[in-house]
This record gives sequence, structure tokens and C-alpha cells, in this order.
Amino acid sequence: MLTLAYLIAITAEAMTGALAAGRRNMDLFGVSLIAFLTALGGGTVRDILLGNFPVNWTQHPQYIYLTIGAGLFTILVAKFLHKLQQLFLVLDAIGLVAFTLIGCNVGQRLGYEPAIVIMAGIITGIFGGILRDVLCNRPPEVLHRELYASVALIVAILYLQLQTFDISEDITLLAAFSVGLLLRMCALRWHWQLPTFSYAPERWQNDNNP
Amino acid sequence: MLTLAYLIAITAEAMTGALAAGRRNMDLFGVSLIAFLTALGGGTVRDILLGNFPVNWTQHPQYIYLTIGAGLFTILVAKFLHKLQQLFLVLDAIGLVAFTLIGCNVGQRLGYEPAIVIMAGIITGIFGGILRDVLCNRPPEVLHRELYASVALIVAILYLQLQTFDISEDITLLAAFSVGLLLRMCALRWHWQLPTFSYAPERWQNDNNP
Amino acid sequence: MLTLAYLIAITAEAMTGALAAGRRNMDLFGVSLIAFLTALGGGTVRDILLGNFPVNWTQHPQYIYLTIGAGLFTILVAKFLHKLQQLFLVLDAIGLVAFTLIGCNVGQRLGYEPAIVIMAGIITGIFGGILRDVLCNRPPEVLHRELYASVALIVAILYLQLQTFDISEDITLLAAFSVGLLLRMCALRWHWQLPTFSYAPERWQNDNNP
Repeated sequence: MLTLAYLIAITAEAMTGALAAGRRNMDLFGVSLIAFLTALGGGTVRDILLGNFPVNWTQHPQYIYLTIGAGLFTILVAKFLHKLQQLFLVLDAIGLVAFTLIGCNVGQRLGYEPAIVIMAGIITGIFGGILRDVLCNRPPEVLHRELYASVALIVAILYLQLQTFDISEDITLLAAFSVGLLLRMCALRWHWQLPTFSYAPERWQNDNNP
Repeated sequence: MLTLAYLIAITAEAMTGALAAGRRNMDLFGVSLIAFLTALGGGTVRDILLGNFPVNWTQHPQYIYLTIGAGLFTILVAKFLHKLQQLFLVLDAIGLVAFTLIGCNVGQRLGYEPAIVIMAGIITGIFGGILRDVLCNRPPEVLHRELYASVALIVAILYLQLQTFDISEDITLLAAFSVGLLLRMCALRWHWQLPTFSYAPERWQNDNNP
Repeated sequence: MLTLAYLIAITAEAMTGALAAGRRNMDLFGVSLIAFLTALGGGTVRDILLGNFPVNWTQHPQYIYLTIGAGLFTILVAKFLHKLQQLFLVLDAIGLVAFTLIGCNVGQRLGYEPAIVIMAGIITGIFGGILRDVLCNRPPEVLHRELYASVALIVAILYLQLQTFDISEDITLLAAFSVGLLLRMCALRWHWQLPTFSYAPERWQNDNNP
């Protein structure tokens, strides 16, 4: 189930990457690269931070083809996508939750402590989108819109918490997955947001760092 | 002493990160992430470049809590911070110098050559701030204001140079630390800057790379 | 031959980095850092992704000096550079092709599959320029101008293809190198471009991800 969710996830994330590249008028190569990076960047950052070499996609070239294919396909269907907006947001939410759970799994397999396992889940869930936004030269969206990164945090904590009970791994995964997906959908529907922090001081005298 | 300076350093850097996130109206999660990344990003980049796995903070979850805590605390006290500006700049300078010395130490422990040890020190000192600025979508400030990165360079060279004399490690550290801190403070006080390079040619015919 | 091309390559790339830093009014340190990163960043990203530690330049401090020297030298000659524009573009093209071939070599030496070897070549070829543009806070140019990244792709594929024939490695390298250089020169001369993808929808209702 997680594998299927993963394939949906990287496809959906690749498509969000392609759309972001399109807003910057990138060429076909740029679209492919941003699609690839959005889909596989989170797992790559996680693998590097956890010292988990070789990095996952270098052992699975088919993921490269899938993400680039999804990116180029997006160009063809871009003009219809706004009609599929709801579907798209569901796919993206599946991606977020699946990435997070996979990231937690990898962290646990490597024997890291719970706090690091949670970080591994969050990083896998959100860093693809952050890399996409950095390369497209815009502030990372995942850090100031409807609950997104927070969903990754909650899913990761819930998953670890459920494991401490006497439940099968499958049910644990399914429960964490469902709660995360539901939470994200609710956040989108009712515009749930974390409080934001706005800081705009009169310019400091020595304004060079803070 | 270096450990204490390190704790001050990551706290101060986390706070600069939180303020930068606040200028971008990020949510609580964004503030936490930028605080974490500003404080621990320099050491992370150093560890990855030097192949020093596992990355430091994955073995010390308490640093994660400390930096995120400092970031969220900053939100509460943000409106008073401009009154603490001088203190803040001193803490940030302590951070810069402590990070640099720790980076040099790590480089030496891994057996790298002096040039790479100096690079390790500089990277530890400045990359947290660079990552902060990239994620907040602004040009890295450390590269064009009062002496900042240069202080890291001088501290690193001085530290290695002092080690060649017959002085105890403690005194070497203290001397390099003091000189670096003093230099940064003077640079802030009298606006010492490196010369800048401004290049604004009439647009080239084939302007695609340089 | 590849070593000579490599030295030309990192020198030329360091100079493009210095010019980009100059457009952002960076100080001498910023110019040095961006020069270093533009020249050696592609190989660094490749080494990290392929788990090829220690990262190349940490074993060759002379490359650090060369790239920083080239960066600072650029400041001195910047006002004459627009007269050397054609030469500069040739050097940059040599850099792109040499980096790509070296990246493929490294990937093969580490035993990766062809698809990953090609990725290694492309990443080595283009990521220095991408890091330069991210740090200078502009959208990566290599992703939406005359054929650039595509040249890296073609060179990498051609190189691997030629190896399957019964030709000496030197001739294979020379052929891939020449074709790549010629292609890039033609692209500059006649403004060959990949089609671009422009996506500017009316704002979506829940516009937070795609």
C-alpha cells in the first residue's frame, strides 16, 4: 500500500514541480529537472542527512523516468488542470502523508532516536516542495499556508505513538495515513492555518544580521 | 568554554533565523524550521562536505529542541528585541566565532589539510546564515555587509597559526576567540567593510551565462 | 586532455560566478565564495549524491586557490570582459562539456547504472551554475536560455553510446567533447532553444501547492 501511495506521491509532486517551473517560463529541461527535484528531493535530503548512501533514487532509475515523464505530461494537460484542482490537491496530500511515513520508516530502519525519526519524516514530506520553491526563486510555500508541514509533524508523531501499542504495522500505517490525509483535507476546506509571525521593525541601526 | 559558547551560538543564530522568518510572515512551523536551519545548518553542511556521518545534530536531539524553542521564544519577545539590539549583535558575534572554531576542530579531528580545515571553519560559521537567507528568498547578507565572513576566515587562520606555537590549546582557543569577537565588534562599530565589486554592464548580446 | 579542460572549466566557471556576485554588489569574500561554489559546486553535489566521499576538492586545496584567484582576478579585468565576450562563452562551453564528461567518468568508476551515470554528468555540468544563481537570488539561468543543460544531456548520452563501440577511450572523449562544444556554440550563434512551458493560470481557489 505504501509503495502505491509512494508512486502516486512522486507523480503528484512532480506535477506540482512542473507547474511551478511553468510559472517561471522554464524550458523542457527545466521542467524535467524541477519535476524530478520536487518529487525526489525530500527523500534525497533525508538520505544525505541520515548518511543513508547510496541515495534511494540512484538505485531506482525508473523513478527518474516516472518523475520526468509526469513533468512533461503536465505540460500537455496544464490547461485542463484547473478543472482537476480538487483531485490534484488530494493527490498532493497523499504525497505529503506517504512521504512522511516513508521517511519515518527509513529513520527507524537506520536506528535513529524518535526525535530524529520524526525529523526524517518531516524532511521527506516537505523538502521536495522547499527545493522546488528555492529553485523557482520564491519563498517556500509550505511554510506559510494552510497546515502542510504541520500535517507531516502530526503524522510522524502519531505513527510513532501508535507503534507503542499492540497493533499490527499495517493498521498503524493505515491509521496514521488516514488521519494525516483527513487533517490536510480539512485544513484546505476550512483554511486552517497556524498563527503566523510577522516582524517588520523600523530599520535597525546596524541591520546586518538579525 | 567552547561548549558554552556553542550553546549561546545556536540560540542566538536560531533567534536571527526566527526574525528573518517573521519578515516573511511565516507560520510557527516555518519559524521553527528556519530557526533550526540557521542554527544547525552550518555544521550540517560542514559534516556532509567532510563526509562526517552521522551528522552532528542527529546524535543530539536536544539541540533540535533548543533551537526550535529559541525560535518560538523569539516570537514572544520580538517587540522588545530592538531594545536589545546591542546584546543581540554580541551574541551573534559569539556565535560566528564559536562556530568557526568548532568547525576547524572538526576538520582537524578528521585529518584534513590546513586549507580544508579553514574552509570547514568558515562554512560552519557562515552557512547557517546563508541557508536562512536562501530560504527567506533574499541575497545572503553575510556576503555584503560589515566584515562577517572575513572574521571567520581570520579566526580560522589565527587559530591554526597559534597552534604551531608552544601554547596550550585553551589559550589558543581563547586568543582566537577574543580577537575574532573584538574584530567583529569593531567592524560593527565603525562600519568596516571589505571593498565590494559592482558589475552592471550594458546587457551583453548573448547574456545567458556570465 | 580532460585535466586541462577541467582547469579551463573551473577557471571559466569561477569567473562567471564572480560576475554574478558583482551584479549583487557582493564584497571580496562574497565574490570568492560564489566563484568557488560556481566552479566546484557541481562536482560537490555529484559527489554527495553518489556517496563519493571525501568530496573531490577537499583532497585538492589547489582548486580552492585557483577558483578564488580566478574570482578575484575577474574583478580586476571586469571592465574589459565585454570585449572578450566571445572568448568567455567558448571557455564556459568548454567548462560545461568537460564537467559533464568528468561527471560521467566518476559515475562509471563508482559502478552506477547508465541512467545514473548520465545524471551524474548533467549534475556536474549544471549544478555549479544553479547554486550560483540560487545564492545570487535569481532563477537558474541554465533552465531557460539557449540550449545549455540539454547539451550536457546529449554529451552524456553520446559518450556512453560511443563507449559501446570498439573505439579507444581517448577518441570517444574527443568526439563527445567536440560534438558538445559545437552544439553549444551553434545554440549560442543561432539562439537555439528548447520550447518553454509558460503557466499562468487565473489564481486557483486553494492555491497553496501546485
